[in-house]
Amino acid sequence: MSDNKTIPYKIYLEESEMPKQWYNVRADMKNKPAPLLNPATLEPMTAEELGHVFCDELVKQELDDTNAYIDIPQEIQDFYKMYRPSPLVRAYCLEKELDTPAKIYYKFEGNNTSGSHKLNSAIAQAYYAKEQHLKGVTTETGAGQWGTALSMACAYFNLDCKVFMVKCSYEQKPFRREVMRTYGANVTPSPSDTTNVGRKILAEFPGTSGSLGCAISEAVEAATSQEGYRYVLGSVLSQVLLHQSVIGLETKAALDKYDITPDIIIGCAGGGSNLGGLISPFMGEKLRGEKDYRFIAVEPASCPSLTRGKYAYDFCDTGMVCPLSKMYTLGSGFIPSANHAGGLRYHGMSSTLSQLYDDKLMEAVSVEQTSVFEAATKFARVEGILPAPESSHAIKVAMDEAMKCKETGEEKTIVFGLTGTGYFDMVAYGKYNDGDMTDYIPTDEDLAKGFAGLPNV
Amino acid sequence: MSDNKTIPYKIYLEESEMPKQWYNVRADMKNKPAPLLNPATLEPMTAEELGHVFCDELVKQELDDTNAYIDIPQEIQDFYKMYRPSPLVRAYCLEKELDTPAKIYYKFEGNNTSGSHKLNSAIAQAYYAKEQHLKGVTTETGAGQWGTALSMACAYFNLDCKVFMVKCSYEQKPFRREVMRTYGANVTPSPSDTTNVGRKILAEFPGTSGSLGCAISEAVEAATSQEGYRYVLGSVLSQVLLHQSVIGLETKAALDKYDITPDIIIGCAGGGSNLGGLISPFMGEKLRGEKDYRFIAVEPASCPSLTRGKYAYDFCDTGMVCPLSKMYTLGSGFIPSANHAGGLRYHGMSSTLSQLYDDKLMEAVSVEQTSVFEAATKFARVEGILPAPESSHAIKVAMDEAMKCKETGEEKTIVFGLTGTGYFDMVAYGKYNDGDMTDYIPTDEDLAKGFAGLPNV
Repeated sequence: MSDNKTIPYKIYLEESEMPKQWYNVRADMKNKPAPLLNPATLEPMTAEELGHVFCDELVKQELDDTNAYIDIPQEIQDFYKMYRPSPLVRAYCLEKELDTPAKIYYKFEGNNTSGSHKLNSAIAQAYYAKEQHLKGVTTETGAGQWGTALSMACAYFNLDCKVFMVKCSYEQKPFRREVMRTYGANVTPSPSDTTNVGRKILAEFPGTSGSLGCAISEAVEAATSQEGYRYVLGSVLSQVLLHQSVIGLETKAALDKYDITPDIIIGCAGGGSNLGGLISPFMGEKLRGEKDYRFIAVEPASCPSLTRGKYAYDFCDTGMVCPLSKMYTLGSGFIPSANHAGGLRYHGMSSTLSQLYDDKLMEAVSVEQTSVFEAATKFARVEGILPAPESSHAIKVAMDEAMKCKETGEEKTIVFGLTGTGYFDMVAYGKYNDGDMTDYIPTDEDLAKGFAGLPNV
Repeated sequence: MSDNKTIPYKIYLEESEMPKQWYNVRADMKNKPAPLLNPATLEPMTAEELGHVFCDELVKQELDDTNAYIDIPQEIQDFYKMYRPSPLVRAYCLEKELDTPAKIYYKFEGNNTSGSHKLNSAIAQAYYAKEQHLKGVTTETGAGQWGTALSMACAYFNLDCKVFMVKCSYEQKPFRREVMRTYGANVTPSPSDTTNVGRKILAEFPGTSGSLGCAISEAVEAATSQEGYRYVLGSVLSQVLLHQSVIGLETKAALDKYDITPDIIIGCAGGGSNLGGLISPFMGEKLRGEKDYRFIAVEPASCPSLTRGKYAYDFCDTGMVCPLSKMYTLGSGFIPSANHAGGLRYHGMSSTLSQLYDDKLMEAVSVEQTSVFEAATKFARVEGILPAPESSHAIKVAMDEAMKCKETGEEKTIVFGLTGTGYFDMVAYGKYNDGDMTDYIPTDEDLAKGFAGLPNV
């Protein structure tokens, strides 16, 4: 490793050093992620079937588990240049605050208006929709980052954008909604009475504050019932992990420039888009037997799909209109308790990460939100950046690992993904500041209810 | 100028290329800005008198109009490295959208948690307070960027931070307040009953929504009535322009790397901190007769201190506790109409910029806010970044100048300051999105009321 003194606070790649291809980690996996199944036939979904829901080119990417590298179209590369490369930051101030011998780096994806890494996939999905001459796309959003990212991408390509926003977020985050409107998107609180599945859920659960799984069902229906529309998703899918590999590729290129080899790579995990993107190229090296790393997925104790879920085929949505995916899941009916702040509230996990986890190539831990906000506040005060609650899960565990190094004296190199900023999460920060934040860990009985809804596959 | 193809979307300096000295434009001015006067004696304020209000080192900087370069202490350079250099962005997408032959660049200062350039001076002022072993500092904030920046700086140096926030902003922007609290600041709506001057203003104008001038009075009183505290200010003062010269120095270094010479440099102007910082090194060249540039200050039509104000000695605050400053002013009692959104609401202008404007070395224009939000929305959709309302004043005029180039066919190079992001201004964006935004240009009678309060100096 280079002398510390030569490592700047922020490592930026040159524009010419930015990735020109995405990396598809499935190509290097011996045990491939299980295929999506048609819920009616229980047969693997064909490209034609998926083409009713997704853009053709994205279907190709979704089904491709053999090609390791896929070209990034020039138009997407150009858009990336507006807000990328994102900096790989050496957390000198955090190291000093913790008084740890560990070397901590974070890849910061929050320096764009969507406030997170979600834009990396949003622009790709909007591009392919435009290429297919579609009128527009539909999607769901929970905490709001994905909806904002997609609104920005659609504004850039002049596509219509319909966002179903989980009702509790819609109400708690009026400003997120307003950002999406500024970018020309149409935002509907979910469940809504604009879709059959929404009306059905409203009838069954009056007064529900909604869930991601439910908003997905509505967005899929809205896409498939209108000419010229397709559905796009911000996480979970293999295509999304592919696009998000730009995070890991940039991280690796930045580390390589300074001959740094990380020991531990940490990311928060909701549906897996950031974590999958961050670790992909490193996992590729591990899969090919070239190098070894520890990978840690961090999830909220209130929505513990990896640490307490089952590895099984499940519906991706509450309305059960989507294909079945084999994944670590809490059941498509699972909804985190009402005190859960921010994102990372999806019931399942990317099939790729689920398989890697099942193959013991990756670890997972869960953390409680009060400890997460404590870490977030400490981080903000020394590193300047106000982190998103989601990202702060990774901060918490990076700090824990750095403190272990302090005990053992090991100079480990820790890299974590700082996926975004918390500017639209001040209600949650306010609760923490006022000492009103609470934790809730689901009981085994809570979880049993979700598992009861798993399909018999 | 280099071939366009070689100019990246974003020009980042290397850490080693960042400025190690601030540039003090007053050193190169033939007509120096008029000195601050003691309101009781009408004599120039001495260092000793100013030392009751400001930190000693900052007083030195305030009074220094002869040294062109002042070293940036290493601790401040280190903090700058956490969020600087800021990118100089080539607005390729905006140029394409406008179909203009003009080449447009913007220096983007919004990629830090304070959301604006204000952090550049906040960290300097906090550093000198810490060096002087003070307990803390007090300040005012309007739109909230400055208060956030100072909170961050104080958290970094473990200083107590008391912020008086203009009441209408305090109420409209609870999330700004929460960010400050997250960084450990104490935030009070102004006018408040915690100071004599606040109580007096409340008695005289019950129900007032406050003003910057009033919040300044309270912050000064809070600083001077407590042991170990000093007052700090985010704009207007010469020391602030000095710190903000880091913007212009980086901009110039980035342009020089690609042999680019701007024709026009544009910045929004409230108290003048961003504009003064951005143009300083270029103005220095103009003052020394080395190069010529057009400089354009853009102010809101609702608070037109340069374009419709008087060049006269005036109070810096409503409570008349501060020194007198010679500046373009609307009178210390002037308060913009209630429909005015965002910052740029100060009644006066930096004495340095006022002198440069009076010497016809700089131009000024005023624009109405509906046209500003129209420009902001167009910019956001093509360049990705959601701009602050303040910054959008500069966007509006940069677009206007680019459109003039389209008419004449001139390939002018336009540089403007994009001071910050609008994430906390979504109430105003919402009004614009709903078509409910209105404009108000003060009548001559409105202005006469403010002028009537000017002191007889």
